Amino acid sequence: MPSSAARKTAEAALDLDAFLPYRLSVLTNRVSDAIARIYSERFKLSIPEWRVMAVLGGTSNLSAREVAERTAMDKVQVSRAVETLVRARRVARTADAEDGRIQRLALTAKGRAIYDEVVPLALHLEEVLLSALTADERRQLDGLVAKLGRQAALLRVSSV
Amino acid sequence: MPSSAARKTAEAALDLDAFLPYRLSVLTNRVSDAIARIYSERFKLSIPEWRVMAVLGGTSNLSAREVAERTAMDKVQVSRAVETLVRARRVARTADAEDGRIQRLALTAKGRAIYDEVVPLALHLEEVLLSALTADERRQLDGLVAKLGRQAALLRVSSV
Repeated sequence: MPSSAARKTAEAALDLDAFLPYRLSVLTNRVSDAIARIYSERFKLSIPEWRVMAVLGGTSNLSAREVAERTAMDKVQVSRAVETLVRARRVARTADAEDGRIQRLALTAKGRAIYDEVVPLALHLEEVLLSALTADERRQLDGLVAKLGRQAALLRVSSV
Repeated sequence: MPSSAARKTAEAALDLDAFLPYRLSVLTNRVSDAIARIYSERFKLSIPEWRVMAVLGGTSNLSAREVAERTAMDKVQVSRAVETLVRARRVARTADAEDGRIQRLALTAKGRAIYDEVVPLALHLEEVLLSALTADERRQLDGLVAKLGRQAALLRVSSV
């Protein structure tokens, strides 16, 4: 005997195929999965670990908090990934020269070697992904992602 | 004394601000975070848990594998989220009538009540997000996300 609450399915249902946050999430997961196939087996790297390495490969000596901000990953996920990377000697942690309470993160030579192998393959995969779009569409996409990113950043600081 | 490997930073660096997979991931995380603020504190729900509930709210009696496919989440993440939801009696698991090895998942009345509260707020937030775009831009976005999604699905089955 279904309760009336269990009957409400139809009227309250979210049409996920039309819901932008869901569509973005599925697209991102598919793209990240495709890139993960480059590094996950070979280097035993998880997606969050690769994201941390990708950020540190471009900018060294960030704190874990700065890595979290740049990736918009949650702090727990970043700190777990950092722990694993430090244990595997792919990332080194050193105390900040001015404020010893802050730990600075950087790729080790071993981490850099992995990064240098993954980067060209990741760029190739991006190119294959973008080959589905015309030059005009790529420009549109750039603009749209930038606009949505700014709006999403506003949502973060405002109340819902 | 930095090794030559550690010197390679500049030439091999991935320009993340121009790298589409990274930009999509940051955008998705920001949007998901904004939506998570609706439910995380109040209902003690994680983002993967909400994604599972959002899928089951629209289509009942899916297997965990089907939920993973629809969200493009990894199976471990889905099964962890399902365990937590089942323990909290937000999702019920029942053996498939025809093949007892398959477990079917559905929201309980308690899960449905949470879903019914979150959905209108999530839709409102989507609307605020999309308010940054004109009607034309929304249509462009629709088309681009669909095209990229199809291309990303191809990447999944082809070798890199």
